[in-house]
Amino acid sequence: MDYENLTLHTDKYQINMMYAHWVKGSLDEKAVFEVYFRNLPFGNGYAVFAGLERIVHYIQSLKFGKEEIDFLRQQEENYSEEFLELLQGFRFTGNLSAVPEGTLVFPNEPLIRVEARVFEAQLIETAILNFMNYQTLIATKASRIKQVAPNDVLMEFGTRRAQEADAAIWGARAAYLAGFHATSNMRAGMLFGIPTKGTHAHAWVQGHETEEEAFRKYAEALPDGVTLLVDTYDTLKSGVPNAIKTGRMLEGMGKKLNAIRLDSGDLAYLSQEARKMLDKAGLDYVKIVASNDLDENVIFNLKAQEAKIDMWGIGTQLITAADQPSLGGVYKLVAREDHGHYEPVIKISGNPEKVTNPGFKEVYRIIDKSTGKAQADYLTLRHEENIKRGERIKLFDPVHPYIHKFVEDYEAVSLLQPIFVGGKFMYSMPSLDEIKQYHRQQLHHFWPQYLRKLNPEIYRVNLSVELWELKMSLIRKHTGQ
Amino acid sequence: MDYENLTLHTDKYQINMMYAHWVKGSLDEKAVFEVYFRNLPFGNGYAVFAGLERIVHYIQSLKFGKEEIDFLRQQEENYSEEFLELLQGFRFTGNLSAVPEGTLVFPNEPLIRVEARVFEAQLIETAILNFMNYQTLIATKASRIKQVAPNDVLMEFGTRRAQEADAAIWGARAAYLAGFHATSNMRAGMLFGIPTKGTHAHAWVQGHETEEEAFRKYAEALPDGVTLLVDTYDTLKSGVPNAIKTGRMLEGMGKKLNAIRLDSGDLAYLSQEARKMLDKAGLDYVKIVASNDLDENVIFNLKAQEAKIDMWGIGTQLITAADQPSLGGVYKLVAREDHGHYEPVIKISGNPEKVTNPGFKEVYRIIDKSTGKAQADYLTLRHEENIKRGERIKLFDPVHPYIHKFVEDYEAVSLLQPIFVGGKFMYSMPSLDEIKQYHRQQLHHFWPQYLRKLNPEIYRVNLSVELWELKMSLIRKHTGQ
Repeated sequence: MDYENLTLHTDKYQINMMYAHWVKGSLDEKAVFEVYFRNLPFGNGYAVFAGLERIVHYIQSLKFGKEEIDFLRQQEENYSEEFLELLQGFRFTGNLSAVPEGTLVFPNEPLIRVEARVFEAQLIETAILNFMNYQTLIATKASRIKQVAPNDVLMEFGTRRAQEADAAIWGARAAYLAGFHATSNMRAGMLFGIPTKGTHAHAWVQGHETEEEAFRKYAEALPDGVTLLVDTYDTLKSGVPNAIKTGRMLEGMGKKLNAIRLDSGDLAYLSQEARKMLDKAGLDYVKIVASNDLDENVIFNLKAQEAKIDMWGIGTQLITAADQPSLGGVYKLVAREDHGHYEPVIKISGNPEKVTNPGFKEVYRIIDKSTGKAQADYLTLRHEENIKRGERIKLFDPVHPYIHKFVEDYEAVSLLQPIFVGGKFMYSMPSLDEIKQYHRQQLHHFWPQYLRKLNPEIYRVNLSVELWELKMSLIRKHTGQ
Repeated sequence: MDYENLTLHTDKYQINMMYAHWVKGSLDEKAVFEVYFRNLPFGNGYAVFAGLERIVHYIQSLKFGKEEIDFLRQQEENYSEEFLELLQGFRFTGNLSAVPEGTLVFPNEPLIRVEARVFEAQLIETAILNFMNYQTLIATKASRIKQVAPNDVLMEFGTRRAQEADAAIWGARAAYLAGFHATSNMRAGMLFGIPTKGTHAHAWVQGHETEEEAFRKYAEALPDGVTLLVDTYDTLKSGVPNAIKTGRMLEGMGKKLNAIRLDSGDLAYLSQEARKMLDKAGLDYVKIVASNDLDENVIFNLKAQEAKIDMWGIGTQLITAADQPSLGGVYKLVAREDHGHYEPVIKISGNPEKVTNPGFKEVYRIIDKSTGKAQADYLTLRHEENIKRGERIKLFDPVHPYIHKFVEDYEAVSLLQPIFVGGKFMYSMPSLDEIKQYHRQQLHHFWPQYLRKLNPEIYRVNLSVELWELKMSLIRKHTGQ
């Protein structure tokens, strides 16, 4: 059983559509699909794009092996043998562009653009969405947490509550690129080079006659950078005093106790009292780690209560994005080949928010040259040249046309980077630490009002006049108005 | 990069505790850990245990390979070479018992019991919890959905919104064993033998000049069991009439249109109108599939509104368990070896709910012989014989001792089955369809009041008198009362 082959990590309807294209002879027609989401999660003002490395590896590894073909042969659809043979030579030969991981992104702008034979473009939809949706969701959640504790150490501790193994490691990676410092998951550490951190469990303390003995034995075994969990019996009466004894023992060995960890109770009060006890004992260098169902709101409140916490171990709420456990990213057809040229395509909906932006597009970030800050993102049709030449552009709100302004003296940063060109991998993949660094820089391009946790200002994603007019004309055509 | 090796799918503190046990020479001491959860998810009256197959495969595959060892060697803990060498021969040599997958389970009863060298028991905690928590959560969610649509076809459609690839497939498996009929995920179909189902996307319709052409071409390519998505332009004005034309065309080919699919709008109204249109056209055999952010509450309400829906495609809300995306399963030390015998261990907490049940235990389901229905689950210390002999037992509520009763004429079903004995796999793993069948039978053992979706009656998990007295004596010992 080849567990690693993700080629069939797709919905059956993709295979059925591929088959139908093959039957009707349209499999080579090209199509352009865009990936975007309609709503920001958590009431945040931005999302942090992630998932690209996983997508690249997935596309490079696509292969219908014997097991996959045998499985398809058994399906009730009775796919023809000729089709199954064709699949055995399948590889991605199209173009794929994407924004770099760590980029701040917004609703209704293309984050990934796939231009390929419809046969290929259809297969990869499901996996691309699965990877992008989850990793972007977690990177965004982590970035929110980072906003409320920008100078503290943030550790991802969620594996046991993650939604299975992949979520644990890819979530750890997403958290790290958005500003976390470490993960407890050793496999994520090994696969991605993320620093790993760990303390000990209550079981270690319970496994000894006394807490004092448990701490001493642990510190003797791991004298460098030891963190002691102090809440097994009674945090202030037993845990902290025993940790202080252990800290003194370590000093006698020429070592230093790194931290104590609080995992239950009133973290504000306990951290303040523990801080006083440690300081009074001359262990003012010992840090305090907190954990126990933390998220950005709990941390924000603990800080408002002047909790003395230096490091945060964050599990369930981060790794599952518990307050909104999915991002609704979609993969929509925007253009299809018709006699050798692209026809823009629209999807009409009774819900105006769900009407798609048609056509083969580019997306630019308009940076004000005088401030270095982003003013808006700007969607154009790909042939539009005025923005590339830095000409004056009009930013307008289509629903309220009196809200508009003209922008000059800007830098237009093209967000979509070529990743695959003609099926060839053309991207210089940054290291995870480079992505992390790039994300940090990204934040500097935005005024603080877009970044705040509660009720952020809405950052504008505008359409060019030409794109807007195309959209209106296609709506008129389809609704017969 | 060996992506398949899950040996380091663990928290760093497990490795650190293993190392500390090795340093202090206690690695061979045996320990007993139990896995349980404290609270039922979704306000449900029961949970559906799942994850065991994954756990078995994980334990059988444990191996510290070169990559894992090299990674550990780089850690700041400076693990000794002798320890790393020992790890290279690591395998699980202990006992592991678990309730069968598909069993209805309840708070605070052991679902998995690990009795092993503490060195081994510690390593596997994280992965066991990760697998059990997620799969049990999704099986429980799926079982709730099944309760409200017991006679309809239920299809899992959530891959694109799942929390990464593992969640998609293991979630599909959990849904299937709890009563779902199919998944859209082809890899889950291939790996687990789950039937796969799929329709087509809006892109298929958009990729043609007209909806009618799109439907016709699709039906020509896949004439058997075709389902048409009718909401790309206008469900009742365009989609259903075009589907009817296609249905007639299929009749002309001696085939039958299987279903139409509604994916937006007012599903109650649209399904009623579509049903009328189909019936009037003589296509009363054509089924109606609905999708669009469904869960048990939406389905329950649609049924109350007499929606004419035969099949349900359920995605995000199921695969992420959106209303409660984690199960808080824990892995707690209950006994440790001391001079050759087991000492029961307790974990005290300021929160009474978090005080553990000490000792090496068994868990029985007390089935009333006259009704065949479960009366309570009953936890004993393993040496207790009276229940094995079918003697009269006392069920009592420790908080309100006036609530008690004596039970006779019962069958005591021991829930924990031996899976590994001395490291050897001893379980006859049922097939997925057998698990599904077993789960269905399980439901018959419970009165309906425990199974209902809203405000179910609380099913009792009781402690034997001896276990209760042990717990009280340990609390007294630890709190000095």
